[in-house]
Amino acid sequence: MTKNHNSYHRKVVMPANTMLNPVPVVMVSCAHKDHIDGRPNIITVAWAGTICSDPPMLSISIRKSRLSHKIISASGEFVVNLVSQELLKACDYCGVRSGREYDKFQECQLTSIPADSLLSAPAIDEAPVSISCKVTGVTELGAHDLFMARIESVTVDADLMDEKGRLCLEKADLVAYSHGHYYALGDILGFFGYSVASPKALKRRLDEIHKNTNRKSG
Amino acid sequence: MTKNHNSYHRKVVMPANTMLNPVPVVMVSCAHKDHIDGRPNIITVAWAGTICSDPPMLSISIRKSRLSHKIISASGEFVVNLVSQELLKACDYCGVRSGREYDKFQECQLTSIPADSLLSAPAIDEAPVSISCKVTGVTELGAHDLFMARIESVTVDADLMDEKGRLCLEKADLVAYSHGHYYALGDILGFFGYSVASPKALKRRLDEIHKNTNRKSG
Repeated sequence: MTKNHNSYHRKVVMPANTMLNPVPVVMVSCAHKDHIDGRPNIITVAWAGTICSDPPMLSISIRKSRLSHKIISASGEFVVNLVSQELLKACDYCGVRSGREYDKFQECQLTSIPADSLLSAPAIDEAPVSISCKVTGVTELGAHDLFMARIESVTVDADLMDEKGRLCLEKADLVAYSHGHYYALGDILGFFGYSVASPKALKRRLDEIHKNTNRKSG
Repeated sequence: MTKNHNSYHRKVVMPANTMLNPVPVVMVSCAHKDHIDGRPNIITVAWAGTICSDPPMLSISIRKSRLSHKIISASGEFVVNLVSQELLKACDYCGVRSGREYDKFQECQLTSIPADSLLSAPAIDEAPVSISCKVTGVTELGAHDLFMARIESVTVDADLMDEKGRLCLEKADLVAYSHGHYYALGDILGFFGYSVASPKALKRRLDEIHKNTNRKSG
């Protein structure tokens, strides 16, 4: 296949902006006795990512002005709650309202439960997956501070486990965020390593995905 | 609405693991004269996230053993190329093969083009969006090192711009990664702030989304 300059795509250069997409959108729960009388709070965060496999670590970025910045700085703990379609309206709400003015658990009719491995930060009972995190470091970057954290344990809805004890996360109906919009996860297009799988392994895995999820697979 | 303990969801606690989902999956392109004769390389990364809005910054995490770790450490530059469904097979391939043994641009029939704002790292012409990044700091975490970077500029396919010069990223057919599977973005479920929008604004925005994307909107 030959290429010449004319076959190049026509491009437009835009000023720097936060263009990584899609990104996760998660509800971060936290609490500390010295803030809002110890009442648990939720902040919705799209600036989040896995940063290390071993030890398992993730980061979230929070503006200095936010109440949750103060709570997490004081407690050194937070829980990352993954967001199902059922939780999305509450998730959006927790991104636009402040815990200084609203009891977000109450407003969203969510249930605060003790989080595994942590002392003060609660988990959200209605979330399909709650990731208990302890802060290992904070880096000031500008508008946001980066909270790096070690994952201590992961709590999942028992309904997401199959009879062999495997987590079937595709049943959780998770939501992605891209350029201002929330999206359902759509068709499964492949699995890690599918591009180099043997035709036999490829067929077996895709059949398996199709069977387990009733989703179209590519 | 009253809740009692019996209404709580039954939970299973799992050992710590990288459970943040969905996450982005992106093709990171890089080059440096002292490595593989200056040949450009691509590494696929799912451990990536936006970390600051102002200045716009993102991070990627790379294992120390990877060739791209050496290239990016030497050049201080990389390009984050967003992945469309059309690019997915190449994206997966670049995650399982090493640039030490394969010329990934050639193997995947991709075109290396100069990246805006950078000296050595190229962009991938076939990517709908390429984000030019300069490394501002590296933090060793364990299996992975965290590369924090400032976004210098963003280059997008001209086809993604509408007649008013607005970026319609929903036309790019981006891919998300979740728990070992690649997913198409599905239905649009809402937009940032939709939970507190007036009924009138909500209807207008959802109609607009529906018109622009031919996607179902919630």
